[in-house]
Amino acid sequence: MTLNTIEWKNDSVVIIDQTQLPTSLTFRTITSSSAMYDAIKELAVRGAPAIGIAAAFGLYLGIRDFPDHGNRDEFINLVEKQAHYLCSCRPTAVNLAWACNLMRQKALDESFHGHSVSFIKKQLLKEAMVLLEQDTTRCRAIGENGFNILKNYSTLLTHCNAGGLATAHYGTALSPIYFGQEQGKLFHVYVDETRPLLQGSRLTAYELQANHIPMTLICDNMAAVIMAQGKVDAVIVGADRIAANGDVANKIGTYGLSIAAAFHRIPFYVAAPSSTIDSTCQSGESIPIEERNGMEITHNFGRQTAPSDIQVYNPAFDITPHNHVSAIITEKKVLYPPYRESLLSIVEQTNHS
Amino acid sequence: MTLNTIEWKNDSVVIIDQTQLPTSLTFRTITSSSAMYDAIKELAVRGAPAIGIAAAFGLYLGIRDFPDHGNRDEFINLVEKQAHYLCSCRPTAVNLAWACNLMRQKALDESFHGHSVSFIKKQLLKEAMVLLEQDTTRCRAIGENGFNILKNYSTLLTHCNAGGLATAHYGTALSPIYFGQEQGKLFHVYVDETRPLLQGSRLTAYELQANHIPMTLICDNMAAVIMAQGKVDAVIVGADRIAANGDVANKIGTYGLSIAAAFHRIPFYVAAPSSTIDSTCQSGESIPIEERNGMEITHNFGRQTAPSDIQVYNPAFDITPHNHVSAIITEKKVLYPPYRESLLSIVEQTNHS
Repeated sequence: MTLNTIEWKNDSVVIIDQTQLPTSLTFRTITSSSAMYDAIKELAVRGAPAIGIAAAFGLYLGIRDFPDHGNRDEFINLVEKQAHYLCSCRPTAVNLAWACNLMRQKALDESFHGHSVSFIKKQLLKEAMVLLEQDTTRCRAIGENGFNILKNYSTLLTHCNAGGLATAHYGTALSPIYFGQEQGKLFHVYVDETRPLLQGSRLTAYELQANHIPMTLICDNMAAVIMAQGKVDAVIVGADRIAANGDVANKIGTYGLSIAAAFHRIPFYVAAPSSTIDSTCQSGESIPIEERNGMEITHNFGRQTAPSDIQVYNPAFDITPHNHVSAIITEKKVLYPPYRESLLSIVEQTNHS
Repeated sequence: MTLNTIEWKNDSVVIIDQTQLPTSLTFRTITSSSAMYDAIKELAVRGAPAIGIAAAFGLYLGIRDFPDHGNRDEFINLVEKQAHYLCSCRPTAVNLAWACNLMRQKALDESFHGHSVSFIKKQLLKEAMVLLEQDTTRCRAIGENGFNILKNYSTLLTHCNAGGLATAHYGTALSPIYFGQEQGKLFHVYVDETRPLLQGSRLTAYELQANHIPMTLICDNMAAVIMAQGKVDAVIVGADRIAANGDVANKIGTYGLSIAAAFHRIPFYVAAPSSTIDSTCQSGESIPIEERNGMEITHNFGRQTAPSDIQVYNPAFDITPHNHVSAIITEKKVLYPPYRESLLSIVEQTNHS
């Protein structure tokens, strides 16, 4: 993976502007919290892990101009305000809340009592950098764990983009594919274009091509057909939030894909860092689903493709029930049903480490 | 239904140019067989019943300039050549072959022996007009038969366009909805946008809006979600060809939709005129599936949405297995499984009538 989705450079965050892909590789320099909010909202940076990291840097950008020797309580208030602000940007991916919360907790760290605001600000930047580094390590571990269970397959189908562009590097669902390539194993990847915003054709196809991975692009509604033709050995997708029972929130279309996979008895894998697990959600029913502007469906390709003034339903995510998920690949280990227990084991591990 | 999809006017065929919908209602005047071939190929006129009628008129346009008192054998040769030419335009919809064959048979009609070429030409134009009129009658009968089994439902989901724009008037899958409206019953229709060419958002949404039918537009990959939400009482789609065992070729995405409907125990109806039944195809496996240019997926909406030079798979149709089909609604009656017998009964009826 040679793409730098998010970087800290010259006191700014530099992101690949993913709204410009695949025809132009453009970078956007972000120097304020509100610019980061907009970048996340507009999907210039997207993907659950990446928006967590982006929000952490965004929070730092939102507090760095607070006076170095200002009032600590006022400073903490500002941290809380910024965390709340950035966290409200998109509701479904739990990584956003997770990263904002980590930053908040860091600011409140007891060992920092008595230190100046200037010192805490430095610690917050450091924390964002740690998140960025850890993401790379975690994604690589997901790749290794995933490759171990996928290595005997030849063809994989993926939906949306859970690749290097959705994280700092490597990705989640695509990481086993890149890991495999390093080991000399080339998968053939079928890529769902992923309506309405085409993260599959714009982003996944782009990064697979850039990394010389063989692939075929299809429309979402062709997935069942290639499954029936025996072309798909396994499905692998990312996740925006995983409930305590193993229900998975992911890009709209994942649920339908899981039904088609179950119908054709094709294994269905979810790859995600453990930060995606939200043990406060007992099941998928309590995961909030973002609804986006209907214009994404009626006008998105540069021209109007539906009549004016019609009713549109545009949920950005859906819930795949845990019984459709063959395994959940995390950076720690591969989890199998019953998920309530297996997920709990790694969440506890996270809390204790 | 106030749209005139195909009309014979001033010695020409006038069609709605469906590539320009929904933003512009443009008519295209067609005066030659090759212009009709192009119109069908480019999908300016599309939908299995409509392209049958269009091909019949196209055949007439291809032979009308043959000398009125020319050699009868040479004339018949030209009819055969034109039938073969127009029939080759799109491979999946059987109505194209069916209409060309009817025209061919008409030209060979024994009772025309001894008549001039001029006379036979007039009979061929008459036959095309009869097909146009019969289509309206048939579609209305499909509407009535369909409404009888759908009338207790409130919400329907449809895929692609099997409406008035796919026929002369009324349509097939949408006909029960228009028939219901005449009876004072308004269904709420969920419309799959239908990638890659968006016949759902461009055409179905357009004609439902023009006819004041309540509807909601969704992306294809959202259908399973609204089914899980209990929003869909029944699915109704058209057909491009029905095999002797009841397997149905229809727009790509129909197969996946049928799996999702089966999973949610939602009835799945197919509406089509009996001319769509191809008893020479024993099962869906022997129905040829048209593959179209990959640019429809990567470049179609005014801008490039996928990287250059990638492999794309773009089948225009898929096969829904007969065991996913709750009933087939024809102009004659509603057919139930086992389809091998029920389909045969109306095909025999057709041959004897």
